[in-house]
Amino acid sequence: MGLIGEFFGYMAGILTAICFMPQTIKTIRTKDVKGLSLTSYFIYTIGILCWVVYGFFIHSVPMILFNTISVIFAGSILYIIFIEGRKNEKN
Amino acid sequence: MGLIGEFFGYMAGILTAICFMPQTIKTIRTKDVKGLSLTSYFIYTIGILCWVVYGFFIHSVPMILFNTISVIFAGSILYIIFIEGRKNEKN
Repeated sequence: MGLIGEFFGYMAGILTAICFMPQTIKTIRTKDVKGLSLTSYFIYTIGILCWVVYGFFIHSVPMILFNTISVIFAGSILYIIFIEGRKNEKN
Repeated sequence: MGLIGEFFGYMAGILTAICFMPQTIKTIRTKDVKGLSLTSYFIYTIGILCWVVYGFFIHSVPMILFNTISVIFAGSILYIIFIEGRKNEKN
């Protein structure tokens, strides 16, 4: 594959692992979940969990590692959308 | 790897490919981008584009296909956040 291919693989892994960190920070700070789709973050979290499981099947440490980081951010956003949504229902 | 492993791989691919479809529909409908992180969707879009490129390097049709679908949704959301953000700046 060569170095350039490896570079794109690692860039892809790192970027998609950390991409929802700014969204997580923003959502924790503002609690503004009105524009966020609960369904999307639910499917996304389940999807990444499947990547983690698949990583165990193919014995890929980077796949397990990168996707575990993603799950933390996606799960946090999902949790806040759920909690804030319930608060708004009560009010 | 067996059927169960394959199952998780395909589930992961399909779910992470389509996960931002509900978010795209919601954002197009409501134009509510206040709670969305431009930085996150920017990093996410670049990250998935790297997966597409990596898919070409390792000759993986599913990787190219699934991530191209993701790019369409992520790119659409990114575009709306950018456009709506500029509108709000002008007002």
